[in-house]
Amino acid sequence: MDTRTRRQRADQRAADQRVADQRAAERESAVAPDQAEPLKLGTLDGHLGYFLRRLQISVFKDFIRTLAPMDVRPAQYSVLLLVEANPGRSQAAIGHALDIERARLARLLHGLEGRGWIERRAANGDGRSHSLYLTRAGEKALVRIKALAARHEAWLAETLGSKRRLLLLDHLKEFG
Amino acid sequence: MDTRTRRQRADQRAADQRVADQRAAERESAVAPDQAEPLKLGTLDGHLGYFLRRLQISVFKDFIRTLAPMDVRPAQYSVLLLVEANPGRSQAAIGHALDIERARLARLLHGLEGRGWIERRAANGDGRSHSLYLTRAGEKALVRIKALAARHEAWLAETLGSKRRLLLLDHLKEFG
Repeated sequence: MDTRTRRQRADQRAADQRVADQRAAERESAVAPDQAEPLKLGTLDGHLGYFLRRLQISVFKDFIRTLAPMDVRPAQYSVLLLVEANPGRSQAAIGHALDIERARLARLLHGLEGRGWIERRAANGDGRSHSLYLTRAGEKALVRIKALAARHEAWLAETLGSKRRLLLLDHLKEFG
Repeated sequence: MDTRTRRQRADQRAADQRVADQRAAERESAVAPDQAEPLKLGTLDGHLGYFLRRLQISVFKDFIRTLAPMDVRPAQYSVLLLVEANPGRSQAAIGHALDIERARLARLLHGLEGRGWIERRAANGDGRSHSLYLTRAGEKALVRIKALAARHEAWLAETLGSKRRLLLLDHLKEFG
């Protein structure tokens, strides 16, 4: 009979998996030993877009991982923050500010409405235009979401160094 | 009878469409005058990822527009440059360096092979592993592609200022 706790067995399974993964990686690198030598970047080395994209991808990966407990993606987060900072503004204004095209924003808002976080009210005297507001539940959720987002930002400061993070923020804002 | 050429009629239709679009935009802004006032960013203002993403999107837009005459996308360009700088390296090594997952890289290479720019040769004594090389046609195409990419990079220097472009390049490379 296995006398270990459920937690101990789970830990053991995780450890076994790590060993198996490592062995698989070793087999793979035995097949393609050239992977060990780093590749030359060549002309890529002079392209800002390449390095921008790499950092942006790892930043988004960490954001999504860190916000997983609230299941919030970067674009949803941006919309929540803009609605919070600009209650009553139109869907079109939010979409324009975030450069999200109309159909994608509609889907995104539909999801946030479904979670009870956002409310669309018909703008005065106009059935076609809608003003956006956070609901009470949305405000509450946003408190928890922001706490996770702050953790992500702290990871970023640690990864880049706080000084470099601020320097990048300053320079990138010029084109925000 | 309409005596205009087909080209003249097409130009007229395009001009009519522009007028219609503009009128629709005016109606929309009359409906939602709030679009004129800029939105507050609120908490977004402190998130590096937001500004990184905005710049990355405009950089990629300009890249795609500038490279349109050669119909080359950023990921294809990166692969071509890495194969140029590292002839004979494996598909796995290129994918690993660029962080492109296996299936996507396979499709991408298939496209570049189809255009006659890249060649896959079975690596010595291993049917499963392939070494990548530029073809003669690939080298020729890359001369033209690089000239366009240099034009894109010049636009970037103009947009950001040369000093800021170099500063960002330096700092972002730390995490390349």
